Amino acid sequence: MKSMTPLEEIRHSAAHIMAAAIKRIWPDTKLDIGPPTFNGFYYDIDLDHNLTADDLINIESEMKMIIKENQPFVRIEVDRQEAVTFFKKQNQPYKLERLADIPENEVITYYKNGEFIDLCAGTHVKYTKQVKAFKLLSIAGAYYRGNENNKQLQRIYGTAYPTKQELNQYLELLEEAKKRDHRKLGKDMNIFHIDDSVGQGLILWQPNGSIIRKELQNFISEELTKQGYHEVFTPHIGKLGLYRTSGHFPYYQESQYPPIIEDDVIQMMAAENCSCAQLANRLKEGEIDGYLLKPMNCPMHIKLFDAQPHSYRDLPIRFAEFGTVYRWEQSGELNGLVRVRGLTQDDGHIFCTDNQLGNEIKASIEVVKVVLRTLGILDYRVRIGLRDPDSTKYTGDSVLWNKAENNLRQVAQTLGVDFEEEQGEAAFYGPKIDFVIKDVIGRDWQLGTVQVDYNLPKRFNLNYIGSDNKPHRPVIIHRAPFGSMERFVGLLIEHFGGNFPTWLAPEQVRILPINDNLQCYANNISTLFKKW
Amino acid sequence: MKSMTPLEEIRHSAAHIMAAAIKRIWPDTKLDIGPPTFNGFYYDIDLDHNLTADDLINIESEMKMIIKENQPFVRIEVDRQEAVTFFKKQNQPYKLERLADIPENEVITYYKNGEFIDLCAGTHVKYTKQVKAFKLLSIAGAYYRGNENNKQLQRIYGTAYPTKQELNQYLELLEEAKKRDHRKLGKDMNIFHIDDSVGQGLILWQPNGSIIRKELQNFISEELTKQGYHEVFTPHIGKLGLYRTSGHFPYYQESQYPPIIEDDVIQMMAAENCSCAQLANRLKEGEIDGYLLKPMNCPMHIKLFDAQPHSYRDLPIRFAEFGTVYRWEQSGELNGLVRVRGLTQDDGHIFCTDNQLGNEIKASIEVVKVVLRTLGILDYRVRIGLRDPDSTKYTGDSVLWNKAENNLRQVAQTLGVDFEEEQGEAAFYGPKIDFVIKDVIGRDWQLGTVQVDYNLPKRFNLNYIGSDNKPHRPVIIHRAPFGSMERFVGLLIEHFGGNFPTWLAPEQVRILPINDNLQCYANNISTLFKKW
Repeated sequence: MKSMTPLEEIRHSAAHIMAAAIKRIWPDTKLDIGPPTFNGFYYDIDLDHNLTADDLINIESEMKMIIKENQPFVRIEVDRQEAVTFFKKQNQPYKLERLADIPENEVITYYKNGEFIDLCAGTHVKYTKQVKAFKLLSIAGAYYRGNENNKQLQRIYGTAYPTKQELNQYLELLEEAKKRDHRKLGKDMNIFHIDDSVGQGLILWQPNGSIIRKELQNFISEELTKQGYHEVFTPHIGKLGLYRTSGHFPYYQESQYPPIIEDDVIQMMAAENCSCAQLANRLKEGEIDGYLLKPMNCPMHIKLFDAQPHSYRDLPIRFAEFGTVYRWEQSGELNGLVRVRGLTQDDGHIFCTDNQLGNEIKASIEVVKVVLRTLGILDYRVRIGLRDPDSTKYTGDSVLWNKAENNLRQVAQTLGVDFEEEQGEAAFYGPKIDFVIKDVIGRDWQLGTVQVDYNLPKRFNLNYIGSDNKPHRPVIIHRAPFGSMERFVGLLIEHFGGNFPTWLAPEQVRILPINDNLQCYANNISTLFKKW
Repeated sequence: MKSMTPLEEIRHSAAHIMAAAIKRIWPDTKLDIGPPTFNGFYYDIDLDHNLTADDLINIESEMKMIIKENQPFVRIEVDRQEAVTFFKKQNQPYKLERLADIPENEVITYYKNGEFIDLCAGTHVKYTKQVKAFKLLSIAGAYYRGNENNKQLQRIYGTAYPTKQELNQYLELLEEAKKRDHRKLGKDMNIFHIDDSVGQGLILWQPNGSIIRKELQNFISEELTKQGYHEVFTPHIGKLGLYRTSGHFPYYQESQYPPIIEDDVIQMMAAENCSCAQLANRLKEGEIDGYLLKPMNCPMHIKLFDAQPHSYRDLPIRFAEFGTVYRWEQSGELNGLVRVRGLTQDDGHIFCTDNQLGNEIKASIEVVKVVLRTLGILDYRVRIGLRDPDSTKYTGDSVLWNKAENNLRQVAQTLGVDFEEEQGEAAFYGPKIDFVIKDVIGRDWQLGTVQVDYNLPKRFNLNYIGSDNKPHRPVIIHRAPFGSMERFVGLLIEHFGGNFPTWLAPEQVRILPINDNLQCYANNISTLFKKW
């Protein structure tokens, strides 16, 4: 049995105390589970009464009573049949199902505090008084076992810390995060608008947001020009065949908008008496001709590279584009600028020789560092995303994967930054280095990325003529210092709490009406970004 | 009978002389028709032998013989039955069908020169020697009566002028246009690339083209900022409902990419055992839910306007966007940068009060004039596009249309530029002013546009609060000084023959390799544009 960390024990015990308090108030409550989480705990319960904020206050009072009673947490090993009988008698159907999940040979345990007995593997603090600082935070709906075909239970979120001081710090942070919420500030400050009639997750940049975006784009454009990049513009749709070649289709169709089917194809299928079921099937199999909203810019840049023959003397060739790509995020996952269905990457692709790869990775990482430093974002860490060796979602052979992963690891070691490796975080075509930054209130944001790719050059049969006068395959580096303009501006709003650095006083920025001369702001923001 | 202009008579006579020459060489040739055109003439013929450039030389020689023979053109009135007998005997099936097209009561005439007799309403020059300067230019395929279900005939193009000098001028212009062809220069100069695997009519801007586009965008951005515009960014797709409200769907679906049908909808139709024919039908009727690649930016800007309440004091509000829109041009109509399926408009929409309309139209036209003047394009004319009173394709009531048309006419009168009115050239939502420019070799290009619109504000139920504290409807002006970046750059390439104004010598620009430091070019081109 894996025991919990001391903090997890406090939080998990708080969850039990909460469940016990709820049972005292509503004895018929049916309980599911109550684990600790990254920043607190929750318990999912089935209760006819719809809980309100007032109820949370009552539950908190009852929890304080239980803590005051200083009940010991007692671990009790129990026979499976006895447990079944007990939870049947208690009318706890979810507990019975959870009990059935426990493998035959495993020891089954209760944890008991006071009158409350829970099916639980532990572990817990010794006495309820050890839960010294807790707070119930919110109520949400949660489908039993996370499956939307099951009943929706009520989930009560809370948090607990070893000391009152730590709890208060966290609550202040939550309060601060709420004030900084980019969705609220973004609306108040005319930064962006999302309109149901246009579509969920699709950002309409309002004038103030557009100024910020343009200034950021100009800033990064300048940096990239210094580094020998060529800016390009490519279409937002491409034929399905292009994405079949790249591997984006049909394997990733669930995270893409459905393809645009040409009228001719539907007419032809109609003439052949095909059913919509056949159409759906042929779509799924990728047998239909049509266009896809581009989920990534790489195939377009590859086609630009391939538009003319190249000698080794031309390389590296570096293309950059503020390319808007479209992805089908589940509507439940959408979140302001941070999780969207249309995102504008500060994208770029480097086509280079094997020998140039190390230097190009270094230079790509340097761009990310320059960007973050210039914008005053100094607290970041680096993560190397590798294959999950057990997954089949990756394309390309493993010799090339190993080569690419080793290349990234070697460069990471020269970075002078802590880095960690994470399996299963690679792109489908190659491993990557991600920059994870901390904002002023300590939250992580995954932003810039640098990815090494031996696979797409092979799939697209890219070549350059080497000094030996023979064709060779280039390597591609995919890189995006900001990640996406949407996400990055979302971060900036929350990081600065809306007080963007500018010659305007913060209160002026906040109330900047749409008709003011925003250009002064535009002219100055870039200068100021560079000064921080 | 409408007689032809003297130039048309020369060209039409040249067509007859050509047909006579062909019949001398290939007596079995079946003839269709041979009218004069805007810049020459053609004749469509049905001949088993595939004509080559060498054949054109032989035909020209024979034509010179016929001209030397100085045959008179003789008009002969003929009885319908006699004509039928004649063309049957001659084995001329197309002439028989054309004969059948002539209404019963109309006089039927031959025109005869030498041994050649043609069914023809005329008119012609008196003698073949009056065709003093002609040239055969090219051979193309042409479906009989322009219908692709009919047989493809061979069309021979030629031109003729009153004098050798005028002919030579025209041939030099053709030669010059060929040298300036933006498709060839665009490829040679790494300006743009079209890739079949991405899709026909979709432009991939190469590094050199992107520099030109960026410089033009920066230039116009600056101008618009001076004029109080706010730049915005909006998505490239929107829900179908948005375009149902605007009127773009389903009425204009033939000129749009088909909608993206949500997976759920296809799944649901599959579950209901629907056929593809039903799907096609429901699509056509606009009953399906989904997304449309935006054919125009206006509904997006309208949603931005409508994102917050407005007082009359906020107006006018001016939004500008380099917005890429997608339209389904027939593949036969696509032409390099000039006729495309994805175009980036330097788009903008002004939301103003009725009282502000006149000044805003003037200012919008002023922007177009500043742009053209700055870029050294001084030869242009103005066209007012009005409703076609017999058409039903326009939305909105005729009181508002009259108001908008009068407004435009009044402003045009103050322009100090010649203008003409053209019925049937309006947008579906309102009348417009178009700028038609002449390039250095005298060809017309339709570019910038300013359109007045009372209809979309009504369809979207837009309001502002007036000084009387009551809601009022704003007017929208749609305007785009360049029209589209693609078309405008296409024009620039041909206008300058690739010798873009810059500090680089023309020969350097032409051979600029992809790895040169293009930034110097970028830094200077805008300065130079302003100096011309």
